[in-house]
Amino acid sequence: MEENTKLLREKLAELADLRASSAVLEWDQLVNMPEGAAVDRGEQIATIEKIQHIKSTSDELGQLLDDLTECTKGLDPDSDDTRLVRVAKRNFDKQAKVPTEYVTEIARESTVAQSVWEKAKDASNFAMFQPNLERLVELRRQYADFFKPWDHVYDPLLDDFEPGMKTSEVQEIFNTIRPKQVELIKAISEKEKVDRSFLYLDFPEKKQWEFGEEVITKFGYDWKHGRQDKSAHPFTTSFGINDVRITTRVKESYLPTAMFGTFHECGHALYEMGIAQNLNRSPLADGASMAVHESQSRMWENLIGRSKQFWKHFYPRLQELFSSQLGNVSLEKFYRGINAVEPSFIRVEADEATYNLHIMLRLELEIALMEGSMAVKDAPDAWNQKCKEYLGIIPSDDAEGILQDVHWSFGGFGYFPTYALGNLVSAQLWEKMSEEIKDIEEKIETAKFDAILAWLRESVHVHGAKYEPQELVQKVTGSKITPEPYIKYLNSKFGEIYGL
Amino acid sequence: MEENTKLLREKLAELADLRASSAVLEWDQLVNMPEGAAVDRGEQIATIEKIQHIKSTSDELGQLLDDLTECTKGLDPDSDDTRLVRVAKRNFDKQAKVPTEYVTEIARESTVAQSVWEKAKDASNFAMFQPNLERLVELRRQYADFFKPWDHVYDPLLDDFEPGMKTSEVQEIFNTIRPKQVELIKAISEKEKVDRSFLYLDFPEKKQWEFGEEVITKFGYDWKHGRQDKSAHPFTTSFGINDVRITTRVKESYLPTAMFGTFHECGHALYEMGIAQNLNRSPLADGASMAVHESQSRMWENLIGRSKQFWKHFYPRLQELFSSQLGNVSLEKFYRGINAVEPSFIRVEADEATYNLHIMLRLELEIALMEGSMAVKDAPDAWNQKCKEYLGIIPSDDAEGILQDVHWSFGGFGYFPTYALGNLVSAQLWEKMSEEIKDIEEKIETAKFDAILAWLRESVHVHGAKYEPQELVQKVTGSKITPEPYIKYLNSKFGEIYGL
Repeated sequence: MEENTKLLREKLAELADLRASSAVLEWDQLVNMPEGAAVDRGEQIATIEKIQHIKSTSDELGQLLDDLTECTKGLDPDSDDTRLVRVAKRNFDKQAKVPTEYVTEIARESTVAQSVWEKAKDASNFAMFQPNLERLVELRRQYADFFKPWDHVYDPLLDDFEPGMKTSEVQEIFNTIRPKQVELIKAISEKEKVDRSFLYLDFPEKKQWEFGEEVITKFGYDWKHGRQDKSAHPFTTSFGINDVRITTRVKESYLPTAMFGTFHECGHALYEMGIAQNLNRSPLADGASMAVHESQSRMWENLIGRSKQFWKHFYPRLQELFSSQLGNVSLEKFYRGINAVEPSFIRVEADEATYNLHIMLRLELEIALMEGSMAVKDAPDAWNQKCKEYLGIIPSDDAEGILQDVHWSFGGFGYFPTYALGNLVSAQLWEKMSEEIKDIEEKIETAKFDAILAWLRESVHVHGAKYEPQELVQKVTGSKITPEPYIKYLNSKFGEIYGL
Repeated sequence: MEENTKLLREKLAELADLRASSAVLEWDQLVNMPEGAAVDRGEQIATIEKIQHIKSTSDELGQLLDDLTECTKGLDPDSDDTRLVRVAKRNFDKQAKVPTEYVTEIARESTVAQSVWEKAKDASNFAMFQPNLERLVELRRQYADFFKPWDHVYDPLLDDFEPGMKTSEVQEIFNTIRPKQVELIKAISEKEKVDRSFLYLDFPEKKQWEFGEEVITKFGYDWKHGRQDKSAHPFTTSFGINDVRITTRVKESYLPTAMFGTFHECGHALYEMGIAQNLNRSPLADGASMAVHESQSRMWENLIGRSKQFWKHFYPRLQELFSSQLGNVSLEKFYRGINAVEPSFIRVEADEATYNLHIMLRLELEIALMEGSMAVKDAPDAWNQKCKEYLGIIPSDDAEGILQDVHWSFGGFGYFPTYALGNLVSAQLWEKMSEEIKDIEEKIETAKFDAILAWLRESVHVHGAKYEPQELVQKVTGSKITPEPYIKYLNSKFGEIYGL
């Protein structure tokens, strides 16, 4: 068994190296690559991914995993080796169920669909994109069928992002939270609007960059194992545990974009940087799920980065950097400004109180499309109707409605709910952490984040992908993912700001 | 046959993608990578290279190449397909002769030797590096033996960098050129020293960068298919024909470093950028040899970049950028300063007249080491003695003598002569080009480089690696590599500068 484990580790390390290599190629593409190199880069990435796919579904690996699954049956179920075998077997079984022709086909269809979606979005014309979306919906339903029997057609899609989680669990959570968030927004909408005009002044890029770096250095971002660059859309990527890079974009005419974007990506990066070194170059050197990952980014961005305690410390420095823009804006006014709640059309610009509703709308549409209970051609109307119902507003065109997100154009059904689940998990972890770190507010007020990071490391980061998300949340907080802490957090925070 | 050719192209394209991917990983390592990621990056590159090695020596590829070699026998020997099969077969046969264990062993030994060399160089202590060098010499002699029978033990090593070239050819060339260069330097040393103190003032990085970019844009560097970054040692790398990147380093206290470094790397890049598109993703998308590559970089750096015509156009702009440093330095004085000949210890800082002698010294030592006619322990003395003989000076320690270059520490015997050969080829091509572009001096004086680049493209670049270096030089100039044009060039240029 020892020899087999060694062999497995070697094979998985090779796969991890290939994954890291293609991540470097992608990072370079988005950060550095000259425009004329796009076609060649596509070929290079495809070649690496093809080799990776062949190696991850080889009979030899399958046999090795079968043997080791047998061997590890009596052993400590939580040891690294047992978990490694389990996760690797899980990945293998999933990949082995999907025929290579399907992989090629969905890759081709989504490449085409993405470029059609871009054009359709520019033209704000859903009809242009409809045939591609129809094809992708069909392909994703086919995908689900590879995993029959399932309880719900959406389960296998969700499982790709939230291992082990069921559609019914997500629906139950969302059914609880929806009316409460709708109610909160309605109450806020009856109050006076908060002034946030000072966020739209001219903020020079260099100083914005400087401030972002100062803050995330305090958060604990490790520059010996990472770097920050600019890209069109912010993202975090890792080439193993020891090289975790973030990107941001800077708008000189709107302060929050780069600032909260940087905090957010730093949250993702701290997670990857905190994974135990002995899990490196294995499939366990990853987050537990997209939701758990998002819980980390949203925690540093919102629970910390939009809190009053945080700004008690950092606002004087921000004012120093932008004295002409913010010199006359009080801390209280600034705090209210960056937390203003206003129903809007674009998800990525949504505030904390409305954000989840954007997600629920998408989830309900995705489920209906996968079930076949709604035709693709009827989706724009459904979108607008739900938007009215949840947010009280109706998009004026497809671009600010159903065409706004890239996800469907690459067949990424099942991804959206993880954003909302991440919000819930962030509050749930926060509640637990606050019980254990008594003076947490003081710590934030003095920019001492060590204890917070240490708690997150020990409870969440260090385990990497050893546990499934529900298992991990249960282990840390004593219960599975639950919406109450987030609802409580929203009500308390916005109750105070809006005097509800 | 058509089907086999298609299959071969696919296999070679996959190998080209892997080569490009590992080049991206290496570029990133030298340009961007955070320091803590070095070990993981080593693993990633090793994994890609291992896969590449297995695929390039597979029986299937060997069989395909045998079949196609048979099929192409009657066909046009210069067609892309015939040449592709020939070059691929040549690479395959070479690689197949080297056992995998040897590849692993030399990789391991040179990794160790490089880090020992760095320490030995810092301590200026050859004895520290001696055991490693002994081991590497032994391994490279072993390597040569895989290719027996040969005329000379050095032939297989040289062949890795100069396909098809023999040691005897190089020796003959060098024997012709050596006394003439020694004589020239002696004559110059009797003349008054040229003032170059104004090159050592303070030149702000940003303006140096700006000037370099302006010049290479005029040369024809294509920013849509490349970019320039900073690195500790300047280099050019390509990820296929459509992404050819250069790096430079800037010394604020010495103007020539970044300037001529940028021209030099741009010369390499223009070569790669000019290869015919239909050779992309194949082994023909490469230079004909290191010497031919170096002929391009040295041409743009020296024959153009250090010519009086060039500076007639660009010196006013340089003076504008650095008015306080160069405002009072005349064009003539500047021109003489950047062309000053002074025997010195460090090869990479050598002027045009002494450069080749640095190379000859190394070649003679390499040959003696490979023949076994000199022991490694005796190499430092031999170095110093030859240095005295050729340059008239003796290094004061190993750091400025035998330990200065990295090449031997990675077992790169056979590489050095390509630098000197590149100088010769640059002058040989230049002579031919000057016959065909009548007003070449005027064109340089007005910074119109289109005709020069077009001539180089058509004569050299477009062919990629289709021809062996001697074949290509013969095809373009009517004779094999010959030293006369370079000697003539040196005598004329420095005769004028020093009034000989």
